[in-house]
Amino acid sequence: MASRGILIVLSGPSGTGKDSILKELRNLRNDFEISVSCTTRGPRSGEVNGKDYYFLTKSEFMDKVDSGDMLEWATFCGNYYGTPKHELENRLNEGLNIILEIEVKGAEQVMKNSSEAVSIFVLPPSVQILKQRLKNRGLDSDEAIEMRTREAEREVALAKNYDYVVVNDNLKECANDISKIIDSEKLRAIHRKNIIKEVLNNESVVSR
Amino acid sequence: MASRGILIVLSGPSGTGKDSILKELRNLRNDFEISVSCTTRGPRSGEVNGKDYYFLTKSEFMDKVDSGDMLEWATFCGNYYGTPKHELENRLNEGLNIILEIEVKGAEQVMKNSSEAVSIFVLPPSVQILKQRLKNRGLDSDEAIEMRTREAEREVALAKNYDYVVVNDNLKECANDISKIIDSEKLRAIHRKNIIKEVLNNESVVSR
Repeated sequence: MASRGILIVLSGPSGTGKDSILKELRNLRNDFEISVSCTTRGPRSGEVNGKDYYFLTKSEFMDKVDSGDMLEWATFCGNYYGTPKHELENRLNEGLNIILEIEVKGAEQVMKNSSEAVSIFVLPPSVQILKQRLKNRGLDSDEAIEMRTREAEREVALAKNYDYVVVNDNLKECANDISKIIDSEKLRAIHRKNIIKEVLNNESVVSR
Repeated sequence: MASRGILIVLSGPSGTGKDSILKELRNLRNDFEISVSCTTRGPRSGEVNGKDYYFLTKSEFMDKVDSGDMLEWATFCGNYYGTPKHELENRLNEGLNIILEIEVKGAEQVMKNSSEAVSIFVLPPSVQILKQRLKNRGLDSDEAIEMRTREAEREVALAKNYDYVVVNDNLKECANDISKIIDSEKLRAIHRKNIIKEVLNNESVVSR
């Protein structure tokens, strides 16, 4: 039986490049899935149900919340977003590593609700550079960028509560750091019970 | 200021190849020192004081025990062996990573006495193979090998209490696993306080 997969929470301020890091990580390894969130917002052009999001009605969403099937959830701009627990559990039991790419408040909920979650905070090289990245993206007004920058400062101060802290200075190096964390976490004693048993069983076979 | 180094406890049954693993690890990285133990046994031919061991008299050794300067200590064949705390502390504060290569009982003491120690247990591929390795080494009588094998079984069952478990099936892979653990541990939030501060300070410079 495969050892249970690792549940990784990848978080950090908006604009630190979490999406790009995960794409780069995919070039390094194939043994992980990115968790698909539920949302009550309508699908944007090109978005596929079950791939980009699970698109739910508000009542379907709240049913999942009420039945305890949301590992974390939050509202954003009047829509609900959340991580369904049931499918996550199945995948972890199959031995798959799952990455939750999630904003800081959601990450805090997961860290509180799951004792097994391995949390990684992505730092920008500096808040100044983050601000510049947000500007270059051209998606936000100056006022929104100011607000996001101040929010980022508050969030960076929470990095110390995570298991690991990586810096997205160089995309390849950052993805490589995360890959090493996954390898290392797979060597934790809690994931090695089967191997310890095997080593012992061989001897019991021999000592007959 | 350099972040404090990592204290690694490398343990496992006699004959699992801890020495060879550390030699192989030296080919991969140079940012660690192997802790030098104190002993009351006399130096063997070619052994150098301060390199192989610190050779102490019994009264010097017990003075260190009494003053609380031994992170762990034990007797073996009438001689005392121990890990001096003072030097270890200095080196860690300089940012050096320190590896304690240590037998299982000593490792348990360190894990109890030090909250920062990262413990790694080295498993043989099987207890059967370990027994064969001890035979090939030609250092022990058949009776001693039987005793060591039974001791190894007891020790392997304790692997679950360590932070990490590696298997010395392939020397290079095993050393590589340990190297990844060191890299990963260096990314822990507790070692990243300076970096978090730097990211925040840059922004405070910019927002003036």
